[in-house]
Amino acid sequence: MATHLDMTALDRLREAAGPGGWSDDPDRLASKLTDWRNQKTGVSPLLLLPRDTETLARIVKIANETGTPLVPQGGNTGLVGAGVPEEDGAAVLVSMDRMNRIRALDAPGFTVIAEAGVVLETLHKAAEDADCMFPLSLGAKGSATIGGLISTNAGGVQVLRYGNMRAQVIGLEAVLPDGSILDQLTPLRKDNTGYDIKQLLIGAEGTLGFVTAASLRLVPAPREVATAFVALADPHAALTLLARLKAATGDNVDSFELIPRHGLDLVLQHIPGARDPLSAPYPWYVLVEVTSAMAGETQRQALETALAAAFEDGLVVDAALAENRTQGLDFWRLREELPEAERLDGPSIKHDVSVPVSDMPRFMEEATRIIEADWPGTQVMAFGHLGDGNVHYNVKTAEPGPRTELMARRYELSEQVYDIVARYGGSISAEHGIGTSKAKTLARLGNPAKLAAMRAVKAALDPNGIMNPGKIFV
Amino acid sequence: MATHLDMTALDRLREAAGPGGWSDDPDRLASKLTDWRNQKTGVSPLLLLPRDTETLARIVKIANETGTPLVPQGGNTGLVGAGVPEEDGAAVLVSMDRMNRIRALDAPGFTVIAEAGVVLETLHKAAEDADCMFPLSLGAKGSATIGGLISTNAGGVQVLRYGNMRAQVIGLEAVLPDGSILDQLTPLRKDNTGYDIKQLLIGAEGTLGFVTAASLRLVPAPREVATAFVALADPHAALTLLARLKAATGDNVDSFELIPRHGLDLVLQHIPGARDPLSAPYPWYVLVEVTSAMAGETQRQALETALAAAFEDGLVVDAALAENRTQGLDFWRLREELPEAERLDGPSIKHDVSVPVSDMPRFMEEATRIIEADWPGTQVMAFGHLGDGNVHYNVKTAEPGPRTELMARRYELSEQVYDIVARYGGSISAEHGIGTSKAKTLARLGNPAKLAAMRAVKAALDPNGIMNPGKIFV
Repeated sequence: MATHLDMTALDRLREAAGPGGWSDDPDRLASKLTDWRNQKTGVSPLLLLPRDTETLARIVKIANETGTPLVPQGGNTGLVGAGVPEEDGAAVLVSMDRMNRIRALDAPGFTVIAEAGVVLETLHKAAEDADCMFPLSLGAKGSATIGGLISTNAGGVQVLRYGNMRAQVIGLEAVLPDGSILDQLTPLRKDNTGYDIKQLLIGAEGTLGFVTAASLRLVPAPREVATAFVALADPHAALTLLARLKAATGDNVDSFELIPRHGLDLVLQHIPGARDPLSAPYPWYVLVEVTSAMAGETQRQALETALAAAFEDGLVVDAALAENRTQGLDFWRLREELPEAERLDGPSIKHDVSVPVSDMPRFMEEATRIIEADWPGTQVMAFGHLGDGNVHYNVKTAEPGPRTELMARRYELSEQVYDIVARYGGSISAEHGIGTSKAKTLARLGNPAKLAAMRAVKAALDPNGIMNPGKIFV
Repeated sequence: MATHLDMTALDRLREAAGPGGWSDDPDRLASKLTDWRNQKTGVSPLLLLPRDTETLARIVKIANETGTPLVPQGGNTGLVGAGVPEEDGAAVLVSMDRMNRIRALDAPGFTVIAEAGVVLETLHKAAEDADCMFPLSLGAKGSATIGGLISTNAGGVQVLRYGNMRAQVIGLEAVLPDGSILDQLTPLRKDNTGYDIKQLLIGAEGTLGFVTAASLRLVPAPREVATAFVALADPHAALTLLARLKAATGDNVDSFELIPRHGLDLVLQHIPGARDPLSAPYPWYVLVEVTSAMAGETQRQALETALAAAFEDGLVVDAALAENRTQGLDFWRLREELPEAERLDGPSIKHDVSVPVSDMPRFMEEATRIIEADWPGTQVMAFGHLGDGNVHYNVKTAEPGPRTELMARRYELSEQVYDIVARYGGSISAEHGIGTSKAKTLARLGNPAKLAAMRAVKAALDPNGIMNPGKIFV
């Protein structure tokens, strides 16, 4: 005890982390202090790498006692700067890298218990080995971790059918800001015993404590996958088609991704080997994937029949149904490489917005009309999860290049987009979170009662403000 | 303003509620002051019946200013006493009966916006009229309201496939304890803008404010329904069968309900017209329902093939597949009338518990061995949602009658059951909530970090303690 009183906060944290559990090597820290998009570099004197929940609980208790800010970090693939410390250098970075065990997998019970540092792709593999599927996937799956995915309530390309990360979390273990351990890890499908505190941790971006492990749901492995690349006149037609396909396939539509022609053009231009599945150009496309855990051809036939009927009705103007999985994956590349093709074309002003599913076509038309009129020379590139009412609404110039003039005014343009989103009751961040990037916009456009409740919850659970300061709140 | 200062709190509340918006008629109040199970009668000087959210917000503001406790009430079908005021007569009862509009139904978008007072059966009908289904149902559907179902995070017989009420809520409108309006009603499938405050209201049993309206998800209407009544040796065999049926049907199992032979016997004895679908008695049964939004015979064939294979393997000892919907509903009656048959047989000590799905057979065996040994003459009646890891675990004597001696010691027996549940990491209330009935048990067995966080959240959002005092917390 006498020793502790003489020690500085950082010394006490090092001691609690134990041998191999910390580093102050600037090179080692550097790789974790810049965010994935290279938009923000933070400063921190110390990296902690706890190996288990009890160690982390001791660390958080010391931080709370000494008022030392902590920044949790998973795979560092977040897009809003939430996993990187602020520039004041006050915060200690805590990486969950060493807490990367899959503690249990119960295939008959369709649950898996994974620690925060487990990489998504590792979880996918473990589920596959047990003839199950973990039904959430996204581009960063090779680096993104379970803790980060939960803390950002991640989405991806299967939300339409399976929901976002919140819908996968059956149980949660967390270290709260006072160092106590929230033990709600037992995978109970039903538990109505007071407030569901774990829901607060999901999507809190590390501001209410550390997610240390989670019980996650699994689903039966798919045995049939049918993929189609469909051309249609506009997003209105796409939504009508979605409702038909849901009914025709027994609500088995996993993905329904919108791509505009000029998006496909960028991919065809920049991505080697990409080719248009259809023989003529059309204004809009959707990539549809339907799956079933039943073996057979039922879904493929249902999709084919529904598409043929939609073609007869003029709803669909052309379509290609993948002959096999390889061709299906070729279709997927056209969607998945679109962000990369965009990047190769030059910078763009990105927005990750949602509105009610049925309003999305109207929103896209109105916002695009306003933005392209008010910002001459710009071109909107809107694509993505139409079935979730969520598109990546990016603005660039029609010509490739550095777009220096436009990018200099990006905040101004973005606020205009967000104002239109707000008129639709939409969200300024459908998938990516708030972090530091969108904190001011949230403060400006968020529902006042919700913001007040968020502040009250934050003050109640983290009275010393040690958890990830500077994020979400301005 | 001068008028307001002279008025008592009750007068101000009456004025805010407006003409027709309140009653102090003892007869009118009486019907709402006793809970559905007739186990608790509360006292209240005044019933308020707000007709819209703004009126309710004014009411809550006055209550908060004057420190007047409010008790929200929906259909008054709750099972733990959460909707009834305490006996001290301090609280004003607020019924949501008049806020019963379906504000919007968007069939192509698969969403409906319903006010708190909408009765579940009314919502089912509205969804059906739009060729959709609202995928949550339970016995009290003719009285239970949307607000109550959300405030208790209700379950029912389709949780296995569609999740509980939390999984249906896309957006929420609520009046918080300070009278502010939480407007998160826009049906956004994705919204990652800070803490998801609406999750706190779901399952809060009215202690954090009033749910006034919700955006709820719909699913395509089922076009094929296949129902089977299956006999097997024990709950272990039932769980193995469930995993097989999930895979065989493409995860289309809606319901998987366990019934013990002595449960079926009670139904056959007490319920007119009930008959055993099988020709010989067996120790355990499951009622299986598989549905699809695709028309056809696919699900029925998959169910039949899987059951035949399970019969070959000895997993299933006998089974009846319903020939048509009428016969399917006959099978359902055997499950749905079991609580009524129990009631006619005499009182029993009821527990609504959950453990991990895979642990349920072992839990049932162990708990039943202990209880029947420690309480000679008792017989356990465990039935229900095996696929959710949730059974209604009721204890009675083998003989019918008033069971006066056993019922006098019911708290002692229940605490013993809950201790066994706690050893499995299970829940003392899977579906019904805490209310006043289970508040002491939760305080004794709940995770300390969770309970502390709950108290902190309650104090932060309702500092004057006006919302439903005496519930959840002891």
